[in-house]
Amino acid sequence: MTFLMACTTTCTPLSATCVMPRPAVVLLSGGLDSATAAAIARADGFALFALTIDYGQRHRYELEAGRRVAAALEVERHETVSVDLSRISPSALTGAADVPKDRPPQELAAGIPATYVPARNTVFLSLALGYAEVLGAGDLVIGVNAVDYSGYPDCRPEYIAAFERLANLATKAGVEGTLRFRIQAPLIGWTKAQIIRRGMELGLDYSLTHTCYDPLTAGRPCGRCDACLLRRRGFVEAGRNDPLQYPA
Amino acid sequence: MTFLMACTTTCTPLSATCVMPRPAVVLLSGGLDSATAAAIARADGFALFALTIDYGQRHRYELEAGRRVAAALEVERHETVSVDLSRISPSALTGAADVPKDRPPQELAAGIPATYVPARNTVFLSLALGYAEVLGAGDLVIGVNAVDYSGYPDCRPEYIAAFERLANLATKAGVEGTLRFRIQAPLIGWTKAQIIRRGMELGLDYSLTHTCYDPLTAGRPCGRCDACLLRRRGFVEAGRNDPLQYPA
Repeated sequence: MTFLMACTTTCTPLSATCVMPRPAVVLLSGGLDSATAAAIARADGFALFALTIDYGQRHRYELEAGRRVAAALEVERHETVSVDLSRISPSALTGAADVPKDRPPQELAAGIPATYVPARNTVFLSLALGYAEVLGAGDLVIGVNAVDYSGYPDCRPEYIAAFERLANLATKAGVEGTLRFRIQAPLIGWTKAQIIRRGMELGLDYSLTHTCYDPLTAGRPCGRCDACLLRRRGFVEAGRNDPLQYPA
Repeated sequence: MTFLMACTTTCTPLSATCVMPRPAVVLLSGGLDSATAAAIARADGFALFALTIDYGQRHRYELEAGRRVAAALEVERHETVSVDLSRISPSALTGAADVPKDRPPQELAAGIPATYVPARNTVFLSLALGYAEVLGAGDLVIGVNAVDYSGYPDCRPEYIAAFERLANLATKAGVEGTLRFRIQAPLIGWTKAQIIRRGMELGLDYSLTHTCYDPLTAGRPCGRCDACLLRRRGFVEAGRNDPLQYPA
């Protein structure tokens, strides 16, 4: 393996003091949010090293979408790491439990849903951190947002700040001061509609992305799970057409 | 899967208010330290749920040792989760690089060695955290120590404290207050000799454990890597015999 060397940690992306774009590790699920976060990081001048986690999710078509998005964004490298969370987590996303359908908006906004996977973002960010240290990349990009997914504890600003602090204590590069790790969560305060508008401004093709927790067949979204409902409502509120086809 | 229910978070292990021992998730590598930490947690009255991580380590015999130790400690359950760190980490423990041999004591104590795996303990603790939340276990046990492994940033007390803080922000149980997560690192201030003496007091059979980073053949330690050198010195300083056989 060969890796890019990082610029100094104080230079801005593509600034005059940088010989090459600064590398960033982007957690890329293949969903709408992570694709938009990656597109924003690319527009900010980062060289993207995409990391997709195969965690035994039942919506495995997402992994294929991740490959398509990575190719469209012309990432430097795309790695997939497998970790079988289904051995230790009975969430609706990894186990046999039913994915909730047709929930009304007030339910979507309240409480922690059955699709919550314990410590998922902590596992993902930990893997991204290890990869980032190896690359010499100080920036980790994650597409969490605290508005539409208010029920997930590991999508909140205070969680992201705590992980950033941990990252700088956990690593050789952080302790020795050769890197200052930053968790970039550009979508954290945005609504789904704002995310979609920004992605479209950047030319992101949302037909490449996959959102559904419980596809009918590969690539055919159910249109009724929480993720589909939030996506569809986001496109409506953004005044744009969702390029995906839903059942009538 | 069925899981134990946790006691109230304020009761002590085996106290009168507990119907059953409180569950704890123990990161069990099969090495001397994690086996001792597990034996201490068991002596403290916890019901042990052992978690072994198969991270593509070249010293894979360790996984077999983990199974033996788990059986000897009569854990409630032993799970192994695979995560292939070799895709993203070129450490001497996961890649093809040479494991250092015959390093003098002053070198062992200084700097971060080639066997450092970026973010390893953060990945391990994240997985343990997810499993603990599923079990309803507030306690995570890890056999890190900051004395013999002073070069590893993720073995220090400030790192453990930062992870504990993160754990309570990252999880549904932590945010809702149904669990208070604690990272138990009972060996963190101990020398290897102190660890060995305590383990032997508790009846731990160290012939079951595996320490070597670069075994000659399955179960036959090289005797010369950093891990073997620290173990051998620990037994000498503790005034005990190491039950493992080393090359002459």
